[in-house]
Amino acid sequence: MSENHVLYLGDTALSGAAAYLAGLMTAFGIGYDYVPSDQPLSSEMASVRRKLFILSDYPSSRMLPAVQEIVLKQVHDHAAGLLMIGGWESFRGHGGDWNNTPIADALPVEISHEDDRVNCDQPALILAGEAHEITAELPWDSRPPTIGGFNRVIAKPGSATPLLVQRFNAAYEAGRFQFTPRDQHPLLVIGAHGFGLTAALMTDLAPHWVGGFVDWGAGDAERVTAQAPGSWQIEVGNLYSQFIANLLTWTGQLATQAV
Amino acid sequence: MSENHVLYLGDTALSGAAAYLAGLMTAFGIGYDYVPSDQPLSSEMASVRRKLFILSDYPSSRMLPAVQEIVLKQVHDHAAGLLMIGGWESFRGHGGDWNNTPIADALPVEISHEDDRVNCDQPALILAGEAHEITAELPWDSRPPTIGGFNRVIAKPGSATPLLVQRFNAAYEAGRFQFTPRDQHPLLVIGAHGFGLTAALMTDLAPHWVGGFVDWGAGDAERVTAQAPGSWQIEVGNLYSQFIANLLTWTGQLATQAV
Repeated sequence: MSENHVLYLGDTALSGAAAYLAGLMTAFGIGYDYVPSDQPLSSEMASVRRKLFILSDYPSSRMLPAVQEIVLKQVHDHAAGLLMIGGWESFRGHGGDWNNTPIADALPVEISHEDDRVNCDQPALILAGEAHEITAELPWDSRPPTIGGFNRVIAKPGSATPLLVQRFNAAYEAGRFQFTPRDQHPLLVIGAHGFGLTAALMTDLAPHWVGGFVDWGAGDAERVTAQAPGSWQIEVGNLYSQFIANLLTWTGQLATQAV
Repeated sequence: MSENHVLYLGDTALSGAAAYLAGLMTAFGIGYDYVPSDQPLSSEMASVRRKLFILSDYPSSRMLPAVQEIVLKQVHDHAAGLLMIGGWESFRGHGGDWNNTPIADALPVEISHEDDRVNCDQPALILAGEAHEITAELPWDSRPPTIGGFNRVIAKPGSATPLLVQRFNAAYEAGRFQFTPRDQHPLLVIGAHGFGLTAALMTDLAPHWVGGFVDWGAGDAERVTAQAPGSWQIEVGNLYSQFIANLLTWTGQLATQAV
């Protein structure tokens, strides 16, 4: 087992979108190794024992099927967690192309064979679904946050769906805004693969799809700042930070220092 | 007059957020020179005759007061346009610090002396204000887009406010979402400084504050792709693209090839 319990793949680079998740893991005291989106995962790196694998905007073309099988053996046999986070290069996306891969078989969602990106120019709000410890004690009902987009997937039988996204048509009519509900989709789906836990979060945790979720929190006093080595300082909402702590610690069955 | 009619300052770098505006100007056939956020503006560069100066997440510390005066002389005497676009390093922001500067005197908004950032974790929608050619013939009422944040400013007397932002408190109660209007702020304010036109857009045009506005448009067939030299390819909504074309062409009194 590596001292760095997490292998984090994707989100472009630490100089870019990876600043968010890497920054928060640093703040949480979760050790990780990082592979940027343009670098392949070697079988040697995939073989290092981990508690959690995170794939976020990491194209399937960077992970050969045989390397995916090495990761999945850690999940299936050794109870490592597997988390995919949404984005234009996640799930099917536009160049993610995770449909028809070994990883897809292990995830708790069905990945489309067509571009699955949904960009939301009008309000899309997070809605709590099945109760779960990842989402417990967070104010989904009293302060539902917005997101900016997501990958459209279908939850597999036997999975659970703690979060959904509800889209709205908004219009300004007769001097006021009107909100009309439209489609609803799974946003967080969890499952298992052998002894390991799996999770699929269909929004991104970095701009632009993260939307207002990145600022989820009550006020200035509650803002969280964090910075990963080799990256830039982020400033985010405290509830967003707490949700990510919950998501990582459950899926990877991690202990953290800061949470 | 430089063949590149626009001097565009800020938005980090062409490898980062500047990809949006630089990409669209490239698509529109608007020639520009670019200065990244970490580079100062020299008096030589400021002296080159332009039709439009754009400041977006460009800290005031990069532009000495004497250099600001050179820019403002072009605006006042030679009818160049001046546009500031919002962000954490625009207006007051967190390190923008444009309050109490010569540029602030020329802009059509009062800039706060305290952190003016408003990050919106719940819905914030754009609302049309005074009719203007920048905002004409765009579906603000039938399809109001979301934004993710803005700088809180006050419109100066004599200015016009073609766009506002309306914030909402959202809650999920008794099986449905409820939206309660809260505060409203100016989002686009226009004015003049001598012979030049001025504009202040308080949201960003790049993530994360741009919110759903970056995807503003009807469907996949209407998406716009663009790429500036030295930058990466963007894919955005057609209505967002049209709004930016209107904003730049009015403020800078530009002709474009593509719009």
